[in-house]
Amino acid sequence: MKGRIRGHSQKAGLPPGTLVHIGQNYGEKPKINFLKYDEKGYQEQEVNIFDQCPVVFKNATVSWINISGIHDIQLLENCGERLGIHALVLEDILNTNQRPKFEDYGEYYFIILKRIGYQEQQHEIDMEQVSLIVGKNFVVSFQEREGDIFSPVRDRIINGKGSIRKMGADFLAYSLLDGVIDNYFIVLEVLGEEIEQLEENLMSRPTRETLRMIHKLKHEMLLLRKSIWPLREVIDSMQNEVTPMIQASTGPYLRDLYDHVIEMVDVIETYRDMLSGMLDIYLSSISNRMNEVMKVLTVISTIFIPLTFIAGVYGMNFTFMPELKWHWGYPVIMGFMLIIAILMLFFFRRKKWL
Amino acid sequence: MKGRIRGHSQKAGLPPGTLVHIGQNYGEKPKINFLKYDEKGYQEQEVNIFDQCPVVFKNATVSWINISGIHDIQLLENCGERLGIHALVLEDILNTNQRPKFEDYGEYYFIILKRIGYQEQQHEIDMEQVSLIVGKNFVVSFQEREGDIFSPVRDRIINGKGSIRKMGADFLAYSLLDGVIDNYFIVLEVLGEEIEQLEENLMSRPTRETLRMIHKLKHEMLLLRKSIWPLREVIDSMQNEVTPMIQASTGPYLRDLYDHVIEMVDVIETYRDMLSGMLDIYLSSISNRMNEVMKVLTVISTIFIPLTFIAGVYGMNFTFMPELKWHWGYPVIMGFMLIIAILMLFFFRRKKWL
Amino acid sequence: MKGRIRGHSQKAGLPPGTLVHIGQNYGEKPKINFLKYDEKGYQEQEVNIFDQCPVVFKNATVSWINISGIHDIQLLENCGERLGIHALVLEDILNTNQRPKFEDYGEYYFIILKRIGYQEQQHEIDMEQVSLIVGKNFVVSFQEREGDIFSPVRDRIINGKGSIRKMGADFLAYSLLDGVIDNYFIVLEVLGEEIEQLEENLMSRPTRETLRMIHKLKHEMLLLRKSIWPLREVIDSMQNEVTPMIQASTGPYLRDLYDHVIEMVDVIETYRDMLSGMLDIYLSSISNRMNEVMKVLTVISTIFIPLTFIAGVYGMNFTFMPELKWHWGYPVIMGFMLIIAILMLFFFRRKKWL
Amino acid sequence: MKGRIRGHSQKAGLPPGTLVHIGQNYGEKPKINFLKYDEKGYQEQEVNIFDQCPVVFKNATVSWINISGIHDIQLLENCGERLGIHALVLEDILNTNQRPKFEDYGEYYFIILKRIGYQEQQHEIDMEQVSLIVGKNFVVSFQEREGDIFSPVRDRIINGKGSIRKMGADFLAYSLLDGVIDNYFIVLEVLGEEIEQLEENLMSRPTRETLRMIHKLKHEMLLLRKSIWPLREVIDSMQNEVTPMIQASTGPYLRDLYDHVIEMVDVIETYRDMLSGMLDIYLSSISNRMNEVMKVLTVISTIFIPLTFIAGVYGMNFTFMPELKWHWGYPVIMGFMLIIAILMLFFFRRKKWL
Amino acid sequence: MKGRIRGHSQKAGLPPGTLVHIGQNYGEKPKINFLKYDEKGYQEQEVNIFDQCPVVFKNATVSWINISGIHDIQLLENCGERLGIHALVLEDILNTNQRPKFEDYGEYYFIILKRIGYQEQQHEIDMEQVSLIVGKNFVVSFQEREGDIFSPVRDRIINGKGSIRKMGADFLAYSLLDGVIDNYFIVLEVLGEEIEQLEENLMSRPTRETLRMIHKLKHEMLLLRKSIWPLREVIDSMQNEVTPMIQASTGPYLRDLYDHVIEMVDVIETYRDMLSGMLDIYLSSISNRMNEVMKVLTVISTIFIPLTFIAGVYGMNFTFMPELKWHWGYPVIMGFMLIIAILMLFFFRRKKWL
Repeated sequence: MKGRIRGHSQKAGLPPGTLVHIGQNYGEKPKINFLKYDEKGYQEQEVNIFDQCPVVFKNATVSWINISGIHDIQLLENCGERLGIHALVLEDILNTNQRPKFEDYGEYYFIILKRIGYQEQQHEIDMEQVSLIVGKNFVVSFQEREGDIFSPVRDRIINGKGSIRKMGADFLAYSLLDGVIDNYFIVLEVLGEEIEQLEENLMSRPTRETLRMIHKLKHEMLLLRKSIWPLREVIDSMQNEVTPMIQASTGPYLRDLYDHVIEMVDVIETYRDMLSGMLDIYLSSISNRMNEVMKVLTVISTIFIPLTFIAGVYGMNFTFMPELKWHWGYPVIMGFMLIIAILMLFFFRRKKWL
Repeated sequence: MKGRIRGHSQKAGLPPGTLVHIGQNYGEKPKINFLKYDEKGYQEQEVNIFDQCPVVFKNATVSWINISGIHDIQLLENCGERLGIHALVLEDILNTNQRPKFEDYGEYYFIILKRIGYQEQQHEIDMEQVSLIVGKNFVVSFQEREGDIFSPVRDRIINGKGSIRKMGADFLAYSLLDGVIDNYFIVLEVLGEEIEQLEENLMSRPTRETLRMIHKLKHEMLLLRKSIWPLREVIDSMQNEVTPMIQASTGPYLRDLYDHVIEMVDVIETYRDMLSGMLDIYLSSISNRMNEVMKVLTVISTIFIPLTFIAGVYGMNFTFMPELKWHWGYPVIMGFMLIIAILMLFFFRRKKWL
Repeated sequence: MKGRIRGHSQKAGLPPGTLVHIGQNYGEKPKINFLKYDEKGYQEQEVNIFDQCPVVFKNATVSWINISGIHDIQLLENCGERLGIHALVLEDILNTNQRPKFEDYGEYYFIILKRIGYQEQQHEIDMEQVSLIVGKNFVVSFQEREGDIFSPVRDRIINGKGSIRKMGADFLAYSLLDGVIDNYFIVLEVLGEEIEQLEENLMSRPTRETLRMIHKLKHEMLLLRKSIWPLREVIDSMQNEVTPMIQASTGPYLRDLYDHVIEMVDVIETYRDMLSGMLDIYLSSISNRMNEVMKVLTVISTIFIPLTFIAGVYGMNFTFMPELKWHWGYPVIMGFMLIIAILMLFFFRRKKWL
Repeated sequence: MKGRIRGHSQKAGLPPGTLVHIGQNYGEKPKINFLKYDEKGYQEQEVNIFDQCPVVFKNATVSWINISGIHDIQLLENCGERLGIHALVLEDILNTNQRPKFEDYGEYYFIILKRIGYQEQQHEIDMEQVSLIVGKNFVVSFQEREGDIFSPVRDRIINGKGSIRKMGADFLAYSLLDGVIDNYFIVLEVLGEEIEQLEENLMSRPTRETLRMIHKLKHEMLLLRKSIWPLREVIDSMQNEVTPMIQASTGPYLRDLYDHVIEMVDVIETYRDMLSGMLDIYLSSISNRMNEVMKVLTVISTIFIPLTFIAGVYGMNFTFMPELKWHWGYPVIMGFMLIIAILMLFFFRRKKWL
Repeated sequence: MKGRIRGHSQKAGLPPGTLVHIGQNYGEKPKINFLKYDEKGYQEQEVNIFDQCPVVFKNATVSWINISGIHDIQLLENCGERLGIHALVLEDILNTNQRPKFEDYGEYYFIILKRIGYQEQQHEIDMEQVSLIVGKNFVVSFQEREGDIFSPVRDRIINGKGSIRKMGADFLAYSLLDGVIDNYFIVLEVLGEEIEQLEENLMSRPTRETLRMIHKLKHEMLLLRKSIWPLREVIDSMQNEVTPMIQASTGPYLRDLYDHVIEMVDVIETYRDMLSGMLDIYLSSISNRMNEVMKVLTVISTIFIPLTFIAGVYGMNFTFMPELKWHWGYPVIMGFMLIIAILMLFFFRRKKWL
C-alpha cells in the first residue's frame, strides 16, 4: 500500500464518461454471480455474460448480482445499459483510485469503498476497490478480483441465518458494508500486534530497521485513516438521505456501523500517537547510546593523557634531574601514576560519568 | 490501559445482533440487584436469574436493575427479550471496546460510558465499560464485574438522602452518570500528584525512567481524553433530546454534569501541556549534562596535550640542546609548564568553559 | 498558578447540590456589603449576617450585595434560601475549580469568572474565583477573600461618576465584569515586560534559569488563555440571551467587552509565539556556544598532536640519526614546528574554524 | 513556481476597475478563436480583432470565444464593452496573482483557475491563469499564452465525440474545467515518480542535494494545494448556485469533478506526509552516519593512547629500571601492548561500538 | 512592530466611555480636512477646530472629514457630540491597541483597521490605526498622524477620475479601505524580496544574523496575519449587513476587496512556510558545517596518534632493541610511518570521511 496515484493521466482529454480501466489487471475472466431471495427461499446462478442476468426485478424478492473482475469494459457497458446506470458511475467503478463515497442517483444509489486485507508474508496491507449499486430491490456489487469477502453474507442468505432474508435490498447493502468494515478490524488487530512487538524490540535492541518499521507503520496508519474517514460521510449520507430505498428498520444498523467507523478512527489515532511516542523514544535512546559510548571513550583518553605527560617528563634528557638517579624513583613514580589514575576513576564515578 | 483493540475480529462475518462477549471474562457469576423506590419507600432484592425480576413497571415507582458481570450471554438475551431491547443494544453491551455514546430508541435510551479507577500498586488506570438502559420509569445498568461504583447512589436511595427519591428514572440515570464522572476526578487528582512528583524528580535527578514515565503519562492522558471527550456529546444529547423521558427539572443537573466534563477536558489539556514541557526540559537537561561532561573531559585533555609536547621536546636526543645542560633547566621547565597550565585554566574559567 | 485540580474528590458520592467548599480557606470572617442606589441617591450598609440584608427589591432601585469570603457554608445556604437560588448554583460558587461560565436560570442568571492579579515578589499570577448572580434589579457578587477589586465600581456609584446610577442591574454586572477584565490587561502588561526583559537576557547571557523562565511563562500563558477563552462565550451568551433582564442599551458595552477579550486572546497568542521563538533561539544558542567551545578545544589538540609526534621522532634512540648530530638541528626543528603550528593556525582561521 | 507576490503594487492608488496587466508578458500577439456549434454542426473562425466576433448569441447554439494572451488591454476593454462585462472582472482577468474563484454576476458567471504543467528540463512546475466567463449560451475563455490546453475539448466538439454537442454552455464550461484539472493529475503523477526516485536515493546515498529536493517538493506541494483547494469552493458554488445557466443534467458531471479535486487534495496530503517522513529519515541517517565516523575515530585514539603511555613509561630515563636491562624486555613489552590492543578491540566489538 | 500591549492599564477602573488616548503621541497639532463632493463638483476646506465643520449633511452630496492626529481628546469629544457618536466609539478611536473590526450603530457604522508601511532604514514595519465612521452621506476618517495614505483617493475625487464622484459614501469608505489594503501588498512585496535575499544568503554564507532575521520575519508574518485576518470579517460584515447605507452597486467592489484579503493571507501563509523551510535548512546546515569541522580535526588526530605511538616505541630505553642499531633503522621506520599515514588517509577518503 503506497498511496501514490497512477494511471489517471490516461484519461486526460477524453470526454467524461469514457470507460477506461485504471488499476491492476488481475487477468482473470470476470465472474458474475446472481442470487435472488425472499423470506421463503433463494435461487443462485453463475452466469457467463451479463445478458443472462434477469434485470426486471419483481418487488417482493431481492436480487444481488456480484461481479468479480472489473477490467472487462464490455461487461460494464452491457451492465450499465441494461440497468440504466449513469456513464459516470461506470467510469468511477473502473477507476480504482477513487476514495470512498456515496452518491444518490434517484433510481439507485452508488457506493464506493475500499476492502483491505493483510498480506502476512510481505507485511503489507493490500487494498481493493468495492463498488455497490443499490436499487429498490436489487444490489449490484463489483470487486476487483475474485475473492471470498462477501461469502459470509452469501452463506447467511443461503442458510437463512439472521434476519437478512426478511429485510430488503438496503439491508443487503448494509450487510456487505458491514462485512467490508469487519475486515478493517481484523487488519487493525494485526497491526496492533505488530506495534506491540515493535515496542518490545524498541526496549530490548533498537536497530535502524526499527526506525524504518515505525515510519512504515505511521504511513500505513495515514493511508488507513484516509480510506476509513470518508466512510463516515458515506454512512451518514445513507442514514440521512430522504429516500424510499432505505427503510426505517435499517436505521439502527447503519448507526451501529457508523459507531464502528468512529471506533476505528479512534484506534488509528491511538496507534499513531503510540508510534510517535515510539519514534521519540527510539531517537532519544539512539542518541543516548551514542553519548554513552563517546563518554566512556573520552574518559579513557582523559585518564591516560596526564599519565603520558608524566612519563614524558621523566623521559626528558636534562642532565640535572635528581629523581632519575634515586634508587626508588621508578617504582615511586609508577605508584604515583597509579594513584592519579585511581583518583580520576573515583572522581568520574562519583560524578556519575562512568 | 493500553488503548489497543482486541477481539473484535471474532465477530467478522457474523450477522448483526449476534451476541458475542468481547472483553475480559472476570469469571464471576453475574449478580442481579433489583431496587424499586418512590418517595415513600423502597424495596431491594437480590435475584439469581433475570426471570425473577418484575418487568412490568408501575408508573409511580422507579425500578433499578443493576447487573454486574456481562459475560453471561444467556442472561443478556433473557433480559433483552423480557424488556424488549433491540438486539444491537445487547450486542453493544457485550462489546467492551465501545466508545461512550447515547442512543435514543424511542421507548428507552441507551448510554455507554467508561468507569475508570486507579490501581495504586501497578501505577495503572483500569477501565470498565458501564451501560445504562433508561426507560420511562426504570433503569437497567450493566457493569463488567462486581464493584461498588454505584453504592453511593444506592445508599442515597435507601437512606432517602438528597432529592433522589422524589425524582424519576432520568434523575437516577443522571446520578449514576455523576457517580462515574466523579471517579474521573479522583483519578485525575492522583495523576496530578504523580505529575507533580515527576516534576520534582526531573529537577533533582532525571533518569531514563523519568522519560518512560513522561511518555506513559502522556499516553494515559490521551486515552483519558478519548474516553471523556465523547461524554460531552452524550450529555448534550440527553439535554437536547426532545423526549418525555427526561424531565425539565433534571436539566440543570445535566448542565452541571456537562460543565464537569468540560472542566476535566481542560485539566487533561493542562496536564498534557505540562508533560510536554517536562519532556522538553528532560531532553534539554540530559543533553546539557552530557555536554558538561564532554566539556570537562576535553578541557583536561587540552591542558595536558601542550604540556606533553613540551616534555616531548626535552626528550629529543639532539646533541646540542643547551638547556639540557643548564643546572636549573629541569625546575625552570617544570615551572614553565605549571604556569602554562595555570594560564590555560584561568583562560578557560574566564571564558566560562569550566 | 499551577493548573492542577484539587479537592474535587471530596465530593465524590455526595448527592448533587451538597454544599462543600473546595479551595483555599483564607480564614477571614466573610464580609457582607449591601449597596442600594438609583439615579437620585444611594445607601450603603455593612452587615454581619445575611439575614440583615433586605431581599425584597423594589423596582426602581438597584441592590448590590457583595460577599467576600465563601468558605462559610451556612452563609451561602442562608443566602440561597432567601433569594431562591438553585442548589447547583451555590455548589458552583463554593467550588473554586470552576471554569468561567454563564447560566440562565430564568429569574436570574449566574456568571462565574476568574480575577487575576500579579504577585510582584513571587513573580506569580494569583487567581481568585468571582461569582455573580444577576437578577432584574439586584446583583449578588461573591469573592474568595476580601479585596478591592470592585472598589472602583463602588466609588463610581457613590460619586455618581459615569452613567452607572442611571442604568440597571445589568449595567452593574457589566461594570463588575469590566473591572475584572481590566485586571487581565494589567497582568498582561507586566508579563509583557517580563518577556521583554527575558529577551534581553537571552541576547546577553542565557542561562538555565532563562530556560526555566521561558517554560514558566509559556505555562502561564496557557493557563491565562484557559481562563480568558471561555469569557468569550460568557459575554456572547449575555449579548444573545433573549431575556428582559438585559436591556438593549447595555448591548454596545457588552460588545466592547467582547472586543477586549478577543484582544487579550490575540495578545496571549502573540506572547506564546514570542516565547516559542525565544525557546528556539535559546536552544540554538546554547548548542552553538557548546559547539564553539568544543571546536576551540579540538583545534588546540589538533595543533599540538602533530608537533608532539615530531618531538617523539627526535626522541627515538636510533644509533644513526644524522639530524641529532647537527649543530643547528635543535633550533631548526623547533623552527620547523613553529612554522607548522603557524600554518595550521592560518589554515584554521581561513576556514573560519577559529 | 515560487509563490511570491509581484507587481500588485503597480495598482496601489489607482481607482478600482483600472485595467493593468500584472504578470509575465509573453509578447505574442493575442489570438482569438471563435467556435459556434449546436447538435447539427459547428463553425470555427480565427479573428484578429475582437470586433469581428459576433456577440449576439442565438439561443440554440453555443458560442465559444477563446483568447490566448491577456496583456493586450485594448482587446480586453473591447471585449468587456461589447459583452457587457463588469470592470472588476476584466481587472481580475489581467491580474495573474488571483487565486481560483467563482463569482456570479447574474447575466454570466466568472471563473478563475490555474492551469499547471511540468517543465521536464528545469524540474519545475509552471502555472498559468485561466479565466472563464460563462453566459447562457456562450463561454469566453482567457489564457495567458497560446497553448493547446483546450484542444482536446475543441477536437471533441469538431468531431462530435461524446455528448458535448448536445449540451449547453454550462457543459462546455465543465469540459474546460475538466481539461484543466486533468492536467493536475498528470503533474501529480510526475511528482509521484520524482518522490519515488528520491526515496531510492535516500536509501542508497543521501546527499545535501537530497535535502534540497525534499524541501523543494514540499514547497511545491504547498503551492499545488493552494491552487487546488479553492477549486472545491468553485465547483461547489457552481453546483449549488440557483441559476438557470447551469442545467440539472450537468450536476453529476460537476459532482464528478468535485470528487476529482478531493482526490487530488488527498494525494497531495499523502505526498506531503511521505516527504515529511523522508526528511526525518534523511536527518536521522545523516546524524547516524556522522556518529559512526566519530565513533570509529575515537575508538582508534582510545586504543593508541594507553599504548603510547606504556611506550612513554619505558622511555623514562630513570637509572634504575630493571626491565630495561632484561634481554627479552623489548619483545615482552611489545607483546604486552599487542595483547592490550587486542583486548580493547575485543571489548569494543562485544559492546557493539565497532 | 513588536506586538506587545501597552498603556491599557491606564484605563483600569475608569467608567466605560472615558476618553483616554492610548498610543504614541506624535505631538503634532491635529489637522482637519473637510471635503464635500457630488457628481458635478467638489469643495475642499482645511479647518482648525471641529466646530467649523458643517455637520448637517445634505442628501445629494457626500461629505468626508479627515482628522489626522487623535491625541487631542477635546477634538474627539467635540466631534462625537456634534455628530452624535457613541462614547464607546470615541474610546475605541483613541485606543490604538484595537484589532480591526466592524460595528453597526444603526445611524452609522464604525470600522477600525491598521495601515502598515515599511521603514526602509530600520528594516521594520510600522503600523498606524485608522478609524472610519460611515454614515448615509458622510465619512469621518481618523489617522494617528499626518500622512498621505488617503491622498490617492482625494486626488481621484478632485480630478473626477473613476466613478467615485458618482457613487455614495459607502463607495468612499470602500475606496479608503482599498487604499489601506493596497499598502499591505506593497509591504508584502518588500518582505518577499527580503525573504528572497535571505534565501540567497542562506545558500552562500549563513550567519547567526541570518537566524535572527528568519525569526524576525516569522514574527512579522504573524503580526501581519493578525492585522489582516480580521479584515475578512470586517468586509464580510459590510457585504452581508442589511443596511440601507451600503448600496447594491458597491457589492462587487467589496467582494473584490475580500478576494484581495484572502490573497494576502495566502501569500503570508506561503511566506511563513518558506521561512520555516529556511529555518530547517539553516539549522541543518549549521550542524552540518560543525560536524565537518569536527570530523576533519578528529581525522588529523587519528592519523598522528598511532604515529606518535610508534615514535614512542623507538624512544624506549631498552638495552636490547636490535632495530636501534641498524644502520637504516631510522629511515625505514620513518618510511613505515609515512606508509601508515598514507594508508589511513586513503582509507578515510574511500569511506568519504574526508
